[in-house]
Amino acid sequence: MNYKIIINTLGWVLNVEAAALVLPLICAVIYSEPIAATFIVCILICGILGAACTIPTIKNRTMFSREGFVIVALSWIVMSIFGALPFIISGYIPGFTDALFETVSGFTTTGASILTDVEALPKALLFWRSFTHFIGGMGVLVFLVAILPLSGGNNLYLIKAESPGPSVSKLVPKIKSTAKILYIMYIALTLIEVVFLRVGGLDTFSALTLSFGTAGTGGFAILNSGLSEYSPYVQNVITVFMILFGIDFSVYYMLLLGKFRSVMRSEEVRAYLGIIFVSIIVITINIRPLFMTLSETVRHAAFQTAALVTTTGFSTQNFDKWPELSKTILVTLMFIGASAGSTGGGIKVSRIMIFIKSIFKEIKIAAHPKSTHKVTMNGRPVEHSVIRAVNVYMAAYIVIYVASILIISIDNMDYTTNFTAVVATLNNIGPGLGKVGPVENFSAFSTLSKIVLSMDMLIGRLEIFPILVLFSPSAWRK
Amino acid sequence: MNYKIIINTLGWVLNVEAAALVLPLICAVIYSEPIAATFIVCILICGILGAACTIPTIKNRTMFSREGFVIVALSWIVMSIFGALPFIISGYIPGFTDALFETVSGFTTTGASILTDVEALPKALLFWRSFTHFIGGMGVLVFLVAILPLSGGNNLYLIKAESPGPSVSKLVPKIKSTAKILYIMYIALTLIEVVFLRVGGLDTFSALTLSFGTAGTGGFAILNSGLSEYSPYVQNVITVFMILFGIDFSVYYMLLLGKFRSVMRSEEVRAYLGIIFVSIIVITINIRPLFMTLSETVRHAAFQTAALVTTTGFSTQNFDKWPELSKTILVTLMFIGASAGSTGGGIKVSRIMIFIKSIFKEIKIAAHPKSTHKVTMNGRPVEHSVIRAVNVYMAAYIVIYVASILIISIDNMDYTTNFTAVVATLNNIGPGLGKVGPVENFSAFSTLSKIVLSMDMLIGRLEIFPILVLFSPSAWRK
Repeated sequence: MNYKIIINTLGWVLNVEAAALVLPLICAVIYSEPIAATFIVCILICGILGAACTIPTIKNRTMFSREGFVIVALSWIVMSIFGALPFIISGYIPGFTDALFETVSGFTTTGASILTDVEALPKALLFWRSFTHFIGGMGVLVFLVAILPLSGGNNLYLIKAESPGPSVSKLVPKIKSTAKILYIMYIALTLIEVVFLRVGGLDTFSALTLSFGTAGTGGFAILNSGLSEYSPYVQNVITVFMILFGIDFSVYYMLLLGKFRSVMRSEEVRAYLGIIFVSIIVITINIRPLFMTLSETVRHAAFQTAALVTTTGFSTQNFDKWPELSKTILVTLMFIGASAGSTGGGIKVSRIMIFIKSIFKEIKIAAHPKSTHKVTMNGRPVEHSVIRAVNVYMAAYIVIYVASILIISIDNMDYTTNFTAVVATLNNIGPGLGKVGPVENFSAFSTLSKIVLSMDMLIGRLEIFPILVLFSPSAWRK
Repeated sequence: MNYKIIINTLGWVLNVEAAALVLPLICAVIYSEPIAATFIVCILICGILGAACTIPTIKNRTMFSREGFVIVALSWIVMSIFGALPFIISGYIPGFTDALFETVSGFTTTGASILTDVEALPKALLFWRSFTHFIGGMGVLVFLVAILPLSGGNNLYLIKAESPGPSVSKLVPKIKSTAKILYIMYIALTLIEVVFLRVGGLDTFSALTLSFGTAGTGGFAILNSGLSEYSPYVQNVITVFMILFGIDFSVYYMLLLGKFRSVMRSEEVRAYLGIIFVSIIVITINIRPLFMTLSETVRHAAFQTAALVTTTGFSTQNFDKWPELSKTILVTLMFIGASAGSTGGGIKVSRIMIFIKSIFKEIKIAAHPKSTHKVTMNGRPVEHSVIRAVNVYMAAYIVIYVASILIISIDNMDYTTNFTAVVATLNNIGPGLGKVGPVENFSAFSTLSKIVLSMDMLIGRLEIFPILVLFSPSAWRK
């Protein structure tokens, strides 16, 4: 294990975090909030520690698969611990577990909160809370790869370990350029949303924070009522952008290059949009009696469908009160998740597709054992290693899922609450049903449960393996 | 597709069913119940139809994998439809869907009931209801293979498609002898339980029906109160026999041959007993405040653990009222299920083990991509085809699971009820939680839901593939 490169990279993560904390500081200055002092302290802590780790030059920049996993896992843990400092130092979330839960929830773009009154927070702290979604959405290591001259190490391992989805597609041959293009498209799409929201009458602060929450498919709101009080226009804009941020970013790159036909051929894009379309129709029919007009019904059905399939978790409605069919569809969407290569969480549409296709393949083989069938995606056969990775991902997912439910059931909450609390955190969604429903929060859980659910958020965002490798003795053995 | 051999085998299934119906007829005669006439009619229907299908001799007895799957799937459907006749003709369950649900629940050894008052049924009908558990436990095609001179066809496909578990172990080289040995051990173990229950003061009728329910890991009781009114001795005997019937039957064959060391080496047996042991301890601690004495606590904890891990589903207690941790453990046990090669349902301990071992293998490979690791069971590497079959089984399981919950949620029952109703049927357990809890039943569901849940019971008992192949167009293509 190359310890020096691990420490060096963690140092760069802290430097980036120090830089990121300048934005809420500016916000505090603009609104003349006394919390500015807290942010200055946090910037100094991150900056000094980061500098201490990054100033010594290291000769051996060799990085292998295990270093990649360990760096990614530790980066996210370090980033979360230091990202929690503004909450702790300012005293708005005094408990360490609670502050960590909130920060992990932010960076992992989950949006689950332990706060009962977000409106009591200063604007700068709300800004930081939403900005963690933006950083976590595309990933901090993708950002590092984009900006740092880390030519010596093999950065593909970092991107692989941090990026969601069963396989990483390089947009261009150079990994550094790929990371740059991704971040540029990400920032551009976010700014377009800000403009649309400003046009709808939102002030810059609301437009920025909501756009961060949408872009990272996070879900932190800045009002206690979630997104229910905004105008239909704003809600519809956010619906559209949630869906857009749930699409593989390489699709946008293809569109920029004018490759419309290969976008149209993408099975994942078609399946993703198809799932959204069918869900909206069924939910609309199911919840129609609850609303006065059809347009209102469609708006809420579309909003909640988009919010849950993309794992954003915003809510305009207390969908826990919807009929059981709609609730069950929404819970199913939570598991499915967005597209691979997007900022969304969940299992990912392409994994589900490979998963289901392998069942059909097996039925054909069961009926005709001597025939040969291959699982294909976009007309090309899927490599065996990808199918194996999907299967192992699902296996680990289920085991972590069951173990988490067992541990949090010690708190003696009802089954629906426990079940959906784990769904909501492991898939980085935010709200579940029951006591963690859209108008509730996670504050009632015990410290043990909060730690488990925080781990689930990290495991979900990093797609399981980095965290498992971090805690695996075999990774640390020579 | 060899249609003639399919019809011929279905005919034999009906002949066996006609013979099986003689037993409840005898019961009706002993207790001078007027329902005897119903059973005579049913025997005639099955016998005449069976004879019509089996009398024409067929030359081509060639059978391939797809015929095996289709025969098994159709046999179970035919057996269930004709097995429902006594309920329908006697008028005790007038609706076809309800009668089919009850019969499928019997043959698949689920034990889920739509009856609100089982004590209102005549003894002969209760006998038939419990006897379906016994037939379904070891399987009707295993029985056919054991008794019929079906030398021409390749009967291994039938056994493979009907037997539970990731791989079929032949006890002896000849498949016919294997089937015979299995049935002899099955009958012997059942009779031993009858003796133990008679010693505990139960009458022969109760001892027989409860033993059928235990042997098949079924779960139909003959009292409305389930098993709560029996003496602690009877409850403990049933606990022990439930655990015994959840063990791979090849283990008993090994014991008979004196191969104690290979039994001790069996990882599945050790894991199965380990899971039971740990569950009993944790549940005992968790539910201790609910009972007066420790021995009573242990008795109920052990009974429910055994009842759910073996997927029998008997209950001495309304465990829906237990603390959430115990309930969550019980729901987890429902998924895990018994050992492969036993009469129990669920996913099976050995599948779970292969599943978890493949995760550990993958973590090691993630950390050291160039190293080679193999999944092993009992010291030997597991074949790639078995691992693939386990993965596809799990994939299909999850998809069927989600689809079922979505459909039954139309009935607008709560999430816990829907979730555990599907768990309880797909894993062939019987009771779930909420409105399908141990003191409730499945009568409140709509016809559509009852059909879906009946399908789930068949899919669960036949381990998914026979039913999927039956409905797959590619199986029927030339």
